[in-house]
Amino acid sequence: MNAAILSIGTELTLGQTVDTNSAWLSQRLAELGIRVQWHVTVPDELEPIRQELERACAQVDVVLVTGGLGPTADDLTRDALAALMGVGLERREEYVEQIRAFFASRGRDMPEANIVQAMFPTGSEPITNTCGTAPGIRARWKDTLIFIMPGVPREMRVMYDRDVLPVLAPLAGEGVILASTLYCFGAGESDIAEKIRDLMARGRNPTVGTTAQQTVIGVRIHVQGRTRAEAQALLDRDREEIRRRLGTLVFGENNDQLAAAVAALLFDKQKTIATAESCTGGLLAGRLTDIPGSSRYFLQGVVTYANEAKTALLGVPADLIARHGAVSREVAEVMATACRQRANADFALSVTGIAGPGGGTAQKPVGLVYIGLADAEGCQVTEHRLGDCLTRDEIRDRTCKAALNRLRLRLLGE
Amino acid sequence: MNAAILSIGTELTLGQTVDTNSAWLSQRLAELGIRVQWHVTVPDELEPIRQELERACAQVDVVLVTGGLGPTADDLTRDALAALMGVGLERREEYVEQIRAFFASRGRDMPEANIVQAMFPTGSEPITNTCGTAPGIRARWKDTLIFIMPGVPREMRVMYDRDVLPVLAPLAGEGVILASTLYCFGAGESDIAEKIRDLMARGRNPTVGTTAQQTVIGVRIHVQGRTRAEAQALLDRDREEIRRRLGTLVFGENNDQLAAAVAALLFDKQKTIATAESCTGGLLAGRLTDIPGSSRYFLQGVVTYANEAKTALLGVPADLIARHGAVSREVAEVMATACRQRANADFALSVTGIAGPGGGTAQKPVGLVYIGLADAEGCQVTEHRLGDCLTRDEIRDRTCKAALNRLRLRLLGE
Repeated sequence: MNAAILSIGTELTLGQTVDTNSAWLSQRLAELGIRVQWHVTVPDELEPIRQELERACAQVDVVLVTGGLGPTADDLTRDALAALMGVGLERREEYVEQIRAFFASRGRDMPEANIVQAMFPTGSEPITNTCGTAPGIRARWKDTLIFIMPGVPREMRVMYDRDVLPVLAPLAGEGVILASTLYCFGAGESDIAEKIRDLMARGRNPTVGTTAQQTVIGVRIHVQGRTRAEAQALLDRDREEIRRRLGTLVFGENNDQLAAAVAALLFDKQKTIATAESCTGGLLAGRLTDIPGSSRYFLQGVVTYANEAKTALLGVPADLIARHGAVSREVAEVMATACRQRANADFALSVTGIAGPGGGTAQKPVGLVYIGLADAEGCQVTEHRLGDCLTRDEIRDRTCKAALNRLRLRLLGE
Repeated sequence: MNAAILSIGTELTLGQTVDTNSAWLSQRLAELGIRVQWHVTVPDELEPIRQELERACAQVDVVLVTGGLGPTADDLTRDALAALMGVGLERREEYVEQIRAFFASRGRDMPEANIVQAMFPTGSEPITNTCGTAPGIRARWKDTLIFIMPGVPREMRVMYDRDVLPVLAPLAGEGVILASTLYCFGAGESDIAEKIRDLMARGRNPTVGTTAQQTVIGVRIHVQGRTRAEAQALLDRDREEIRRRLGTLVFGENNDQLAAAVAALLFDKQKTIATAESCTGGLLAGRLTDIPGSSRYFLQGVVTYANEAKTALLGVPADLIARHGAVSREVAEVMATACRQRANADFALSVTGIAGPGGGTAQKPVGLVYIGLADAEGCQVTEHRLGDCLTRDEIRDRTCKAALNRLRLRLLGE
């Protein structure tokens, strides 16, 4: 089976919103062994939507559509489906009541505008929306199954799991596609590819490829098999081989974040962590607490943005800051050491740096960051020069990753 | 002029990576008045890439392509362009040297694999990559301009600004499209649409539409004019009218985040802020320090995740926590009040709640959050019940937004 994904919205083709639905749906389809041939995005205009539905129905077995089901005049997906099928729209009273009940459950009256969300092309089937007001639509056209879901990611995801997946799973057949990605940190894409070049040869099954995203390198393994067992065996073989060659460069798999890898090690070794941040401003603590159950290892964090805060919350001597500057190896060391002691934690991470865009000098340019890691044996500080090609967001992001990776390697005993 | 955007990568059609390049490029094209007809994404396979290039060349004036220029065997974009043009690939020695110099600047030798990045279809022009190893490619086919850029967002953006924009800008002609989005927080999409329904009528110029993303409602204004002045006047008229009707629901424009709106008010009124967070784990401080120059208003933050940390860093009495629970109105109040005093700040925000997925009870379900806002006059705590449809990430995100909005409205004097 193969599929296409159609996203609808002028906010998407104008670039005001990033489409995350297509990626999420693609992952779900890959899990079923359904091959996604393309994603396409068109504006809120009737004819382009109709044309893309027609193109998909001519070429694929399933088309998943998101967006354009809202209550306003620029929501045209139901009209485009009706145009494709050559039918009109019918009002379904039970869905008017569902929408009214949804508003009532939040203590509100249904605005008149929302009634249009209970209009469906003749011959299509409504899909209940349990998390919002826009019902979805299910239809069949020229042997292609069409599922239309709301563009709001949360509503779409719940609707997919509840009403689309149960229809697709039995149809998905016996050919199985499995995919897995190993995520690496600490080396460039070419260096990693060099180590696994033979596995990346064209025409192999599994296919192995690399991608780089914000200094995390993904090694993707994608396998086709006649049965799930066959596909799984091929996948496992390559995964083990790649893990063996890349060693501790690999920190996780699939949707794992670096923080999840660190959390797993902290859970496993029953160690605790505290943080003291300057330029990352709480993001490092934020990542460490992204993980459910993080209260078992994360004790406390301080965001000592102002120099006075470094002194008040961590006891960094004012004259040390005056002598070396707030962005210095010396200050990073005191921050981590004091943070660990005050929190009574096994480890403490400290960060001080210049995230820009202002505040850089020739000696201390934007992108200069010091990361301290304190444990019972003392404190080690590393200096990072992230260069001038990066934005403030990127510098803060990479600093968090570098700090998490320091802790990860320490927990692995390196 | 019109355009299509083609993104290439099996990691995209497998859903392992979210495509942010298409949105970014669409914004840039809209600024030039170039209309984006579609985004399409295909896997790293020669024939689908070639077909999409062919379809775009038949229908649009410009096609912007990202991805598939890496050094590995699954990077096939240059081959697909050569296939479209019916030519072979030529090695360009000056680009081999550029790539070698890029590695040398990082103190590394060029891996042999990277030489393929200096191969270009005959008749195409290389584009220098100043931030990475993959040069871009510029070509013309059947009156359509093709620009191929790396998939790594940072490299793509620098290349677009440096080498693509200067070619497109003079060609973009006299029809001008301007777009702007007003971002709102504090009401639902239907309620906001109801207030501006007449402006959202079909066939108007500007077109006005709404979108919802993670409880932020965007009101998009999209205008076509013969001249920039005409378009700007139409845009300004609608923008003022919408701002007048929506009042303080509007917090910002275009890429503004709620934090930027709060930062602007803090700058303007020369007020300072400190934070005390439990369930948001540093994210609130992270957002407040996202803004360049945030050291002028953000003094310090504490992440008091463990109960002991609430007592040690904020002096929350252990028996208060025992009596009311860490997630309570009483604890939120003491956290904000103590945080403000200890930081000597004008305002303090506190957050305590249950982000889930575990930890909820019948009385205190997942999604229950208390937000305290302390100022010189005292402390007000609001209770939020975010419901059981949300993920941990969403609960943390909405809690940050609700806290920032509390501070925003307070700074506006509401």
